Amino acid sequence: MPRRLVVVGGGAAGMSAASAARRIDPELGIVVLEAGGYVSYGVCGLPYYLSGVVEHAEELLAHPASWFVEHRRLDLRLHARAVALDPDRRVVRYVQDGAQHDLSYTALVVAAGGAPTVPELPGPPRPTFTIRTLEDAIALRSLLDAGTVRSALVVGAGYIGLEMAEALHARGCAVTVVERLPRVLTTLDAEVAARVEDHVREHVELRLGVGSEPLPAADVVVLATGVVPTGGIAADAGATTGPRGALLVDDRMRTSLPGVWAAGDCIAPWHRVLGAPAFVPLGPAANKTGRVAGTVAAGGDATFDGVVGTAVVKVFDLEVAHTGLTHEQAGAAGLAAVATDVVGRSRAKYYPGATPLHVRLVHEAGGRLLGAQLVGREGAAKRIDVTATALHAGLTVTDLAALDLSYAPPYAPVYDPLILAAQAARRKLVAAV
Amino acid sequence: MPRRLVVVGGGAAGMSAASAARRIDPELGIVVLEAGGYVSYGVCGLPYYLSGVVEHAEELLAHPASWFVEHRRLDLRLHARAVALDPDRRVVRYVQDGAQHDLSYTALVVAAGGAPTVPELPGPPRPTFTIRTLEDAIALRSLLDAGTVRSALVVGAGYIGLEMAEALHARGCAVTVVERLPRVLTTLDAEVAARVEDHVREHVELRLGVGSEPLPAADVVVLATGVVPTGGIAADAGATTGPRGALLVDDRMRTSLPGVWAAGDCIAPWHRVLGAPAFVPLGPAANKTGRVAGTVAAGGDATFDGVVGTAVVKVFDLEVAHTGLTHEQAGAAGLAAVATDVVGRSRAKYYPGATPLHVRLVHEAGGRLLGAQLVGREGAAKRIDVTATALHAGLTVTDLAALDLSYAPPYAPVYDPLILAAQAARRKLVAAV
Repeated sequence: MPRRLVVVGGGAAGMSAASAARRIDPELGIVVLEAGGYVSYGVCGLPYYLSGVVEHAEELLAHPASWFVEHRRLDLRLHARAVALDPDRRVVRYVQDGAQHDLSYTALVVAAGGAPTVPELPGPPRPTFTIRTLEDAIALRSLLDAGTVRSALVVGAGYIGLEMAEALHARGCAVTVVERLPRVLTTLDAEVAARVEDHVREHVELRLGVGSEPLPAADVVVLATGVVPTGGIAADAGATTGPRGALLVDDRMRTSLPGVWAAGDCIAPWHRVLGAPAFVPLGPAANKTGRVAGTVAAGGDATFDGVVGTAVVKVFDLEVAHTGLTHEQAGAAGLAAVATDVVGRSRAKYYPGATPLHVRLVHEAGGRLLGAQLVGREGAAKRIDVTATALHAGLTVTDLAALDLSYAPPYAPVYDPLILAAQAARRKLVAAV
Repeated sequence: MPRRLVVVGGGAAGMSAASAARRIDPELGIVVLEAGGYVSYGVCGLPYYLSGVVEHAEELLAHPASWFVEHRRLDLRLHARAVALDPDRRVVRYVQDGAQHDLSYTALVVAAGGAPTVPELPGPPRPTFTIRTLEDAIALRSLLDAGTVRSALVVGAGYIGLEMAEALHARGCAVTVVERLPRVLTTLDAEVAARVEDHVREHVELRLGVGSEPLPAADVVVLATGVVPTGGIAADAGATTGPRGALLVDDRMRTSLPGVWAAGDCIAPWHRVLGAPAFVPLGPAANKTGRVAGTVAAGGDATFDGVVGTAVVKVFDLEVAHTGLTHEQAGAAGLAAVATDVVGRSRAKYYPGATPLHVRLVHEAGGRLLGAQLVGREGAAKRIDVTATALHAGLTVTDLAALDLSYAPPYAPVYDPLILAAQAARRKLVAAV
């Protein structure tokens, strides 16, 4: 039998894996099984297609499917859903057009992504959407373009829920966001999340701590209650799983099954700050782990050095960014953590457009940085990367205070908000000695 | 005699020193000698006052002079120019209102700043300005406000020259920039500077490599040919100096003279990448070294961990940022350096407003990062800080490629331009093995 790599999933991770494998081995047979009708689009772009900021769905694709067939010589099978795996015989079973097929492989990359959780909602049935696939987004946008949707209910106030609230608001809907928890964005500490809540309420209705009471009426419902990893075919075949049932992999994306690699939102990559695997399904790691899995599965070598949990989300006019652990997460992990809050400015105080920038640093009593949260109208998105870099390098808040960061009045005050926060954190260390 | 700290210079460094000393010692007598009529303003704001972006000169002051007298209990002597120093007797001589005064001290902080170089210009005399003090800026702005200035000549195409060109252009002047060297911004490599030159030429006339030919006629001339450190009173008294005659200090800002500290633009702080002192007169280090000098001179303890040479400048619609060493500087320092260039995008390709972002990384053949240069319409200013942090921590381009940087379509592509550049740099390392 000729060597054959099968990739399950044609999203960012799967197509990165397939492309990387092709670069390593020009002769390898590469089959991609994609359950939907599109490949290589970023899930992160869907809210912007819905809002109309991005006009055509095709703009979200890295390349059209035909490009991968022509330029990467992939055997791309769309509407092909992998349903079972026999790791001993090295056969994957998939369903396409209602028929079952068995496909043998020499190497398998599972990049099946994540699936939205679908809670049961009380009340009468209404047009209900999850926004995980391009098909989901196209269906909802068609409805919105028809002009009959006046009100929308978003269930869940995580980052996808808030992005959807903004998108639907931009389309002229009266939007209500309901959330079971008493706060938005569990990736932030509650005190920081409160700033985001105040801002969200300037634009849409936000109901927190919603229990079993009837949900408000709406022309359309969008579910954004979280994502679960969908590495089920590997897990069912005995692959070791970790947090939230995500597949566990080593730094070369090998699962516990021989000949099976995994990448993207269905794995729990190494979290460098936690020192443990964590389920943090985000785009950059999906792309990078896909590339590593494809490279190694095709006979090359590459490693993935883990994540620190960096993310940013646009919430109406706010940039909301975080990395590492929140104070709550650090406590849950048994770390004696300290939180330091500072409100700096995005630019020199005399420069037009300067706006407040809230910085929270989370650090150990001894000084090691554990995480950061930034919220402001500008300057949060890329500033968080300084703290992500500091986390990667294991720096302390004292190191952070000593950084030589860029300054010019249009872009930062002479003491950058990050430096102010690090100085305040450092004073706590000195005081504790 | 009661203990007395004398601070020479009321700029960012001097006022930081005086304020820090007051925090350490509430009883200390603190005298500040300032040659001009204003204290605690950032030189970096002057172009924005000239352009009118900042309306009133007072907005540039951190606080009015009276605030420091009242809240910091400083003996603030304006129009008082220090002219000589006797370190053995611990006496500083200064001139105020034409009269000479001798003032004894127990500790002295020299924070005299820098002075613009004034080249002799060929041709007829014209109203000529340097822009180093608030008085300079007020004088030129008065002339501009009078409405009679139609054309301006800027001599020097370093960052101050380009900021001045933008400011004068914003005031409606026809601006010509002349530069002796064949390129702008020696803080960039020539290939990167060329992108800035193309952009500058969209707005004003730029003449590079200008020799002894007659300069174009203009209603006003602005000199921006560089700054020299003005620590002369300490140097004349025997203090050790380094690059460009700047004062040498240890990590507590002690000069070689007993009882004399120095800070700000008149010193050459430790450059962490060069592993040597360097004259890099910039605002953040001025503030930080001032604070350290004042703290230590007043009996406290603090250290300054050096600079990596990070800076950013707005040049019309471009953000131009750099840190560490250029390829040219690395070569001059005897390092076998490699430059890697990548053009990424500031946002996801499908998100409106995405613009090209040019990244140059400079690194050793073995991978250690030595510097970075970023040029683009957005996203350069704070992205440079990731590389500044990496330099501080001694990271390699392989480390840089592994960073977990933030991603959301409005703020970055899924592969941040910095990651793309680091990946490209890493491929050169692998290729070299």
